[in-house]
Amino acid sequence: MGVERVEVREKVLSANDEIAAEVRTRLSGHGVFSVNLISSPGSGKTLLLERTIDLLKPSLRLAVVAGDVQTRNDAARLERHGIPVQAIETGGGCHLNARQVSESIASLDLAQIDLLFIENVGNLVCPASFDLGESLTVVLLSVTEGDDKALKYPAAFRRAAVLVLTKLDLEPHLDFSSRVAIDNALSINPELGVFLTSSYTGEGLEAWTAWLAEQASACKRGS
Amino acid sequence: MGVERVEVREKVLSANDEIAAEVRTRLSGHGVFSVNLISSPGSGKTLLLERTIDLLKPSLRLAVVAGDVQTRNDAARLERHGIPVQAIETGGGCHLNARQVSESIASLDLAQIDLLFIENVGNLVCPASFDLGESLTVVLLSVTEGDDKALKYPAAFRRAAVLVLTKLDLEPHLDFSSRVAIDNALSINPELGVFLTSSYTGEGLEAWTAWLAEQASACKRGS
Repeated sequence: MGVERVEVREKVLSANDEIAAEVRTRLSGHGVFSVNLISSPGSGKTLLLERTIDLLKPSLRLAVVAGDVQTRNDAARLERHGIPVQAIETGGGCHLNARQVSESIASLDLAQIDLLFIENVGNLVCPASFDLGESLTVVLLSVTEGDDKALKYPAAFRRAAVLVLTKLDLEPHLDFSSRVAIDNALSINPELGVFLTSSYTGEGLEAWTAWLAEQASACKRGS
Repeated sequence: MGVERVEVREKVLSANDEIAAEVRTRLSGHGVFSVNLISSPGSGKTLLLERTIDLLKPSLRLAVVAGDVQTRNDAARLERHGIPVQAIETGGGCHLNARQVSESIASLDLAQIDLLFIENVGNLVCPASFDLGESLTVVLLSVTEGDDKALKYPAAFRRAAVLVLTKLDLEPHLDFSSRVAIDNALSINPELGVFLTSSYTGEGLEAWTAWLAEQASACKRGS
């Protein structure tokens, strides 16, 4: 039983990796920079995306693939910002996989996109194992979740290139130390870039969006 | 491939259910009332448990099985409250299963326990599919996570008998409505009992612990 499970899991991951590689080739062929956003439920992925879209829309052509276990709530919120949004309902699945992303982006005109956000299912465990073909992964951690999360969910923080701390405006009301949270994250992944943000006050969003724009521009030049 | 995965998943679930049934028989044979706590990472499971233990310890014999993907941080925090704590590290697994709980409680003297808490891995998706042999499941939702979480993660809210809203002290600083969150949860599961709590101020903890004590007492009478 145990062996059978491991074998199936390996087959699933290797099939996923093949599709992810295809997705990566398609996206980079069109010079699309893509970001896989992972976090706990309620860390503020959708609100950060809404703010980010408003700031970047004047200068970049954006699109979103938004995953959820159930409902199209996030997709509906993002669509109001006037960019193409593809919703994926996993129907119980605890992560997006490369096939879902591949099918989703088939409906997008990639030649008209500079920056694609892939909002993964709210989950700090499963999404860490699945390559979606993204340029890089960003992990969000809200200050309300506790500063030891990187130690408890190391795979997500190892996979990510960047950590976005969210809801910084709430820190004064909490027993939470950004310093400790960042130190813990860097102990898991010393290469991690870090942004401190509040989607509510706008703190840190300029640096975050400037970095995204720079990455997208570098990706376009390289394609 | 798809069929093979479904078959393996069904075998895993049915093997789990058999062990869960054994766990349930063992626990109820000793009159132990057991609670499976599920929530997102950072919803406040461990702090709620710490407060709950302090309030109930004078009148009930308590124990905890604490699950985490990595680290024994939660178990270490709980041990300081002077009750038996068993830690389970899932090493990447996104939920506890019945076998892990079965092996954990083998080290506990069940005849000396009235109320057993099982703190599941922080995850709103996977734990909803795995019976651990508990008397009932409690889902936590912190006010910082957004009021539509029950709609997005319906399986967890369907499995639960009780919803504990946590971090109520932060609600004044948030665009969050407890009313909307509860209405959404009840639309998924009309039988759900609801407690509004703040582990920080102590709000609602008296009602929550009184309810637990009552359930434990009823369980003892029935054994």
